[in-house]
Amino acid sequence: MVMKLFELVGTDTSRPFSPYCWRTRMALAHKGLGAESIPWCFTEKEAIAPHKSDKVPVLLDGDTSVADSWAIANYLEDTYPDRPSLFGGEGGRAMGRMLNWWGDVTVVGGIFPLIVADIPAHLAPDDVAYFRRTREARLGKPLEEAAATRDHAVEGFRKSLDPLRLTLRTQAYLGGDKPNYADYIVFGGFQWARVVSPFKLLVENDPVYAWRERLLDAFDGMARKSPGYDV
Amino acid sequence: MVMKLFELVGTDTSRPFSPYCWRTRMALAHKGLGAESIPWCFTEKEAIAPHKSDKVPVLLDGDTSVADSWAIANYLEDTYPDRPSLFGGEGGRAMGRMLNWWGDVTVVGGIFPLIVADIPAHLAPDDVAYFRRTREARLGKPLEEAAATRDHAVEGFRKSLDPLRLTLRTQAYLGGDKPNYADYIVFGGFQWARVVSPFKLLVENDPVYAWRERLLDAFDGMARKSPGYDV
Repeated sequence: MVMKLFELVGTDTSRPFSPYCWRTRMALAHKGLGAESIPWCFTEKEAIAPHKSDKVPVLLDGDTSVADSWAIANYLEDTYPDRPSLFGGEGGRAMGRMLNWWGDVTVVGGIFPLIVADIPAHLAPDDVAYFRRTREARLGKPLEEAAATRDHAVEGFRKSLDPLRLTLRTQAYLGGDKPNYADYIVFGGFQWARVVSPFKLLVENDPVYAWRERLLDAFDGMARKSPGYDV
Repeated sequence: MVMKLFELVGTDTSRPFSPYCWRTRMALAHKGLGAESIPWCFTEKEAIAPHKSDKVPVLLDGDTSVADSWAIANYLEDTYPDRPSLFGGEGGRAMGRMLNWWGDVTVVGGIFPLIVADIPAHLAPDDVAYFRRTREARLGKPLEEAAATRDHAVEGFRKSLDPLRLTLRTQAYLGGDKPNYADYIVFGGFQWARVVSPFKLLVENDPVYAWRERLLDAFDGMARKSPGYDV
């Protein structure tokens, strides 16, 4: 039975944009697994309530449902052990937990104020109201005010990527010669931005830019083929 | 033949204090390997020049010399594969490269301005002059000026540890149930601070504090027994 994946979308249901859903989509591709997409909007809480979650991604695999991108990665690794490993062993799984938090705090958290004002244009009216209310509470200011300083603030975000940038001096991916889940953690944030915002997060001579290009090309260009801006 | 390790010291040769040497010392203990300490001061460049390095740690294993803590960790993992793994597999080794840079940039780099003014008191006059000149060039200001704002600046440092702190919600160590090299990377920075400075980097109800305590107790209290401040 084919798996199903609840993925966050706005008015264009072919344009999934959650950083966490993209981690899962890349992980599924790494394992060589397909999943039918179930487009899901912010305000459709009741659609995923039976799966004991109020957020996506939620993966349905037969009678099993798994919520949360980190839990899904672990589920896939444990359930499909004969397919390419997402973590490269138990050490990678343990260290991956820290990289997942680094991805949440530094990458997703760092990108958030830079692109947040571009997101409502992709949402239906009910979702716009929900998004603006919850995100402005998180920011403590209007979305537009957060975005107003982004040309300057992006410098700090780029600097915060130094641990990734320095790693890429000696290896092509966080996973080594080939990408693994550590790469998808970070890439998910960039793909989220690419789908919803024309804002240029990276400059072209940055090794992080080249790394992102390689991941856009991975799995037959899966992420690049998904609708987005040319950033 | 017993290994030898060049370790950074000041006037008290029983008080090694480099964050990088402590990474190596913990890695050796993890592998169950001993190494005779060769105390080394900042200005003794000629003593390690034959080993093609101007910095410590430098490990001597028979006819082999290895400089740089990351290279040493890889050397130990490859040369002593039957002993407990430092990385927990190739995924951990690859992701460990990123955590090593995070440790350098965020932990060592974050601690540096907070404790730097306390270091000269531990050094001989020649080393004081060398240390002040090179470190003030790096800081762009006198050591004392960097330290003057530390009561406030430490808040930012503590916040920067969020990815570690959040990871410790669900596992005891970055390495999982037990510590591995990922933990020693970060711990090396804290042990460096503990040896040279009475400044309180962590508050007692911080999960990072408890994690540091566990590593101070590791290997029969090896790090705790080394002379330092009660922080």
